[in-house]
Order: sequence, then C-alpha cells, then structure tokens
Amino acid sequence: MSRHRRSSSFASAAAVFTLFSVSASWAQTPGPLNAITDVPGIEVGHFPLPSSDPTSPPPITGTVSRAGAVGGVSQRGGAPGTRETDLLRPENLVEKVNAVVLSGGSAYGLAAADGVMLCLEAQGVGFPVGGGHVVPIVPSAILFDPGRCAAFSVRPNASFGLAACQAAKGGPVQQGNVGAGAGARSGGSKGGLGTASTVLTTGASNGIIVGAIVAVNSSGRTFDAQGNFYAGFLELDNEFPLIGLSATDVVPPSSLLQNTTIAVVATNAKLTKAQATKVAQMADDGLARAIKPSHGVGDGDTIFVMATGTDTRDATNLVNGIGSAAADTLSRAVVHAILAAQSIHVGSCSVKSYCEQFPNNCAK
Amino acid sequence: MSRHRRSSSFASAAAVFTLFSVSASWAQTPGPLNAITDVPGIEVGHFPLPSSDPTSPPPITGTVSRAGAVGGVSQRGGAPGTRETDLLRPENLVEKVNAVVLSGGSAYGLAAADGVMLCLEAQGVGFPVGGGHVVPIVPSAILFDPGRCAAFSVRPNASFGLAACQAAKGGPVQQGNVGAGAGARSGGSKGGLGTASTVLTTGASNGIIVGAIVAVNSSGRTFDAQGNFYAGFLELDNEFPLIGLSATDVVPPSSLLQNTTIAVVATNAKLTKAQATKVAQMADDGLARAIKPSHGVGDGDTIFVMATGTDTRDATNLVNGIGSAAADTLSRAVVHAILAAQSIHVGSCSVKSYCEQFPNNCAK
Repeated sequence: MSRHRRSSSFASAAAVFTLFSVSASWAQTPGPLNAITDVPGIEVGHFPLPSSDPTSPPPITGTVSRAGAVGGVSQRGGAPGTRETDLLRPENLVEKVNAVVLSGGSAYGLAAADGVMLCLEAQGVGFPVGGGHVVPIVPSAILFDPGRCAAFSVRPNASFGLAACQAAKGGPVQQGNVGAGAGARSGGSKGGLGTASTVLTTGASNGIIVGAIVAVNSSGRTFDAQGNFYAGFLELDNEFPLIGLSATDVVPPSSLLQNTTIAVVATNAKLTKAQATKVAQMADDGLARAIKPSHGVGDGDTIFVMATGTDTRDATNLVNGIGSAAADTLSRAVVHAILAAQSIHVGSCSVKSYCEQFPNNCAK
Repeated sequence: MSRHRRSSSFASAAAVFTLFSVSASWAQTPGPLNAITDVPGIEVGHFPLPSSDPTSPPPITGTVSRAGAVGGVSQRGGAPGTRETDLLRPENLVEKVNAVVLSGGSAYGLAAADGVMLCLEAQGVGFPVGGGHVVPIVPSAILFDPGRCAAFSVRPNASFGLAACQAAKGGPVQQGNVGAGAGARSGGSKGGLGTASTVLTTGASNGIIVGAIVAVNSSGRTFDAQGNFYAGFLELDNEFPLIGLSATDVVPPSSLLQNTTIAVVATNAKLTKAQATKVAQMADDGLARAIKPSHGVGDGDTIFVMATGTDTRDATNLVNGIGSAAADTLSRAVVHAILAAQSIHVGSCSVKSYCEQFPNNCAK
C-alpha cells in the first residue's frame, strides 16, 4: 500500500512529471523489536528508571553481553570522554568486551563503569586472569549534560552502573528521555536515546542481525527547518511518521560545548577485532548521514561495536554489508531518539522536543 | 526565484498540505569558479590532457600550493594507497605541504608524486634542509583503475607528475573524465573528477573560502534508482540539474575491489596541523553523505586538507564551521563529478554515465 509522502512532484519550465519511488530494494527488515536487543544475548539496562523530574540524576545506559562480544570502536568526535578504548585496538590483547556503558555526567560519568565491573565480577563475567578471578571488560563513553536541570554536581556514580547492570535484560528498549539520553539535547532541540535493528535477508548475509542504541546529544541537527529528517530516506517498514525528505539545509548551532553522540552497534556476526573496528568506522557514517554537522570540535562522537558471534559463519566477505547495515541502523536509531524525545519545561530548564515543534509529524 | 522541484507534496488520510521550502539559510555561496582554485594560491594540473581514447594512460591530478599549505589528512577507507600521510600527523615535524597528487594506477600510481617533487625542487619549492636544498612535501593517494580499458601495465609514472606540476595553474578546473577521474567508476556507473567551492559570508567566518576536488571511484553509489543524488539537498545556487531528493535506498554493489575515492580540500584559513586534521575528519562526512556506502573494506577513501593561511585571522573558533563547509563542499564536488562524467563504450570497455542513464536530468 502506497504512502503518499514517498511521491514527489517536480515541475520545470519544460515539463511536469511525477516520480513514484519503487519499494526500497534493500533486502533488509527491522527485527521484531526494532531494537538492539534483537541481537541474541544483548541486554540493556538503565538506571535510574525514567523519571518525569528533569532535576533527578541523569541515568546511564548499559549494554551488556554476558557471554562476551568481540569489540571495536570508532572515535572521531573532537571532545571525547572514554575508557577502555585503547584496549579495543586490534593489536592489543583482549578480544571480548562484556558490557559498554553510555553515560551522561561528562567525564565524571565514566565512574558508572566501575559499578558495571563490580556487577559482572559478582557474576563471574570477565576476562580470566587466573585463580578464578576475572576482570570485566567494560568500555564506556560519556556525553555532556551536567548542570542543565539539576546542579552540576548531580551526576552518575558507580552505584548507577551497578544497578543498571543488575537491571539489564532483553526485550523492548525504552527510548527518548531515558538512560544516557535523559538529559541530552540535539541542535537546540531535546535529544534522547534511540534504538533500531536490521535483519539481513539475502544471500550470504541471510540471518545476520545488526542493532544499534544511541544517545543523541549533538551540536548538529537531525532535521531541517520543515522537520524533515536528514536520515528520512533510510526508513524501513514505515517506522517513521508521515514526514518528507530533507530538502534544505540549516545553519549549524555555534555551541562547541555540551555535546557528544555515543552509540553501541551489536551484531550476531562472528567478527575479528579488526573487522569489528571496520564495522565501527562504517557505522560512524550513519551519524554523518543523520546529524549535520557531526564529528565536530565539541562533539565527542564515539561508536562501539559488539559482535557476539552466535552466527558462527566466517564473516570475512560480509564485513562491507554488515558495516553498511550498521550505518543505516544507527541513522535510524538517531531518528527514533529524536522522535521519542519529550520536551522539558521546568523553571529555567526548558527545551522543546521535535514533536512539540512539529506536532502534525508526530500524530501517528 | 523559486524552482519548483524544491516543493514537495505530502498527503495523509487526515490532511493534505504542501510545504514550500524556505531559502537555504546557510550564509554560503559558491565561489566564482565553483572550484578548488577559488582558494587563492591553489593551482590544479592534469596530465595527460583529457583524451577521448579510454585506452590512453590514466592521467593524474596534482593540486599545488607553491607557497605551501598546512596539511591534514583523514584516511578511513579499508584499502588505501598513500604516501606522506604519516608526516601529516600533528605531532610530526613538517607543517606545510607543497602539493597533493591524486592518481589512478593503483599503488603503482604513487610514482607520479616523484615527478611532482622534481618539478617543485627545480622551482626551489619545498621544506628547506640546509645548503639551499629543499625537499618538496607531496602527499599522494591513488585509486584503482588499471586494466579497465588499457592494459594493466599502462599506468602513471614520474613523468606524469612532472608534466602535471608544470601544467598546474589557477582558473577553471575541468571535470568528469579527466585527471585522476578519467578511469574512475562509481557504484556501477562512470565516476570522474569533480570540484566545488564555498565562500562563507557571515560573522567571524566572513571571507573564508573552502574548495574541494575529488576523484570518485567508489564501490557505493551517489544516487538512487530514480537518479536523485543522496547529496542533492546540499545544492547551492541551482548548481545541479532539475532533479529531486533521494527518497529510496539501493543495494550496494558487492565488489570489494577496484574502488577508492580520494580528495583534496583547500581553504584560505590559517589552521594549525591539528586543526587541518580535524577539518579533514569533518570533510570525510561529506563522502558519507554523498556516497553510500562509503569507507568500506575495498575503498581506500582518503581526504587531504591544504590550508594556505592567506586569511591570517586566528581560526580557532572557526574550525567547526570550516569543517562543516568542507563536508558540504566535498559532497557537492562528488555530485559535480558524476554529472560531468561521460560514458565509455569502446569494445569490451563499457560503462554508462549518469547522464546516459538519466538524460532528462542532464538537459540543463
């Protein structure tokens, strides 16, 4: 059934013609949850749970793979706050990560990963170091949100990580003002947390699942002055509201501070660390397509990859397709984050959501 | 004056409404040539000159700044062929480059830079090493085109670089099947060489010029099944033909070989090496927006930056804006390359241009 927004009319002095687009020819569909948890073994936990009080501490988001997942990272934003990213370089020892923490709180929020480590240690999950001991491998990245609604000193600590890890589970993932996206802003609008997934259904890639979760706190914008998303053309299965395609550009906000978009891409493919790194690099193009500008001086944009390898086929010839799907899935997760974000209007702490600005686009 | 293609009609069950886009609010215009040579001091030379015989040796493109330009690079594609990129790391000694060579011929084409060095040495241009001697700093990147129409052994050598350097000049820059783009292909269509420029006209950025030149030889595509360019929304001043906005996605070509997109971004801004590196990283997002997928396993995508610094203001707070303009300018140069590309049909060497596939879009 045709949805009319996918038709566009163009008129010139010489001729008037209408193009109706064909169905997208990607052999891809969203997974059943359209969430990173469509990748078997991937669990997500937030702490604290979502609150309507924007002065409460900013929650964190943990993405956990208790069985371990081969890790990769792409760090290209100009103002990062990270831990355990050096370890992810292909030449370094450890191959598998047990969790990735996305947190608010600027660099103070890196403390949340301490608690995730303690949670996983108690479960015996981590890199074995002899004597029955483990060191959980928990890379993390933060975004800047402190002092927006709560005091600057209100920030995630290790107890947040402990609780988020204990709460981690599969199933649907909440989006919008939740987890690391609770205090996020994006190009002057409310940012948030978003997730998406893609199931590859053709050829040698059949059965590969790619999921993404992202906290969007970007200096750049995700939509133009008419509310059309830059990444609108990547929609799968009518997952976005009835909106058009980006036709114009906008001036980027000049703020160099208080930004950063951070994400995790997960897949069931069996990747080496080097392959996971390449997938992270390709996934990073999904930020470029969804957010404009991106990777700027004041954005600490960082993308982690977790490859669980439960699909045990050799993926050597699938890396390009997985990376391309990772970029698209991440772009779509960014759109989901902005669509799910809710306005905050509490005293001097005020920021409008996309849906407050374009209510007709969110009527769906 | 309104061009009607910038209006789109969307219909839903609830309401029918038409959005007319406002004028792009970027305070940017193309430069007078809409070419990298709009940056004062930047010269471009090709050798051999364009030929209608696709079995002739693939030419190279040299971008020369005899006065020297602060250099930066972003190398993210999976199959690069480069020289002098380590030197460009901010912590290393040399700050200024004298030329950048873009060449076909796969890694054999790196020989072309030898000749550019000899040309510049004869002019006394280079890094002074005492005794009146200089070592010209000539980074280079190549793309894969050998064996397409000519024999595999027909390739650029040092004499090409020498001639291209001697021919380098300001003024208009030829596009399409010329220079490093002569043998290029892009997502199954004819690739080519393209250029574009942007003049920033507001606030502290007023007077900053950003230019780009690119040889598009990508595994990914630049337009969808209807001929709409992914980067169509970045058009300035009606520089593209009467075409629409990308509304659908396409399957990426599966070929992992014989690709790579290489480019130079130049600016008159006074940048440090570290700032030039950040601008290169941000410019790389312009490839992501114009080519899909990009930075894959078989693409050696590499972007150089040359900052001439003839605008002597401190650019510290302008880096984000310059990087964003660099991305947009590079995206537009990619579109120009594909629009200017010409079909080749000589014996078994056959590849269709964009304009052969979508003649109505090229009637302008």
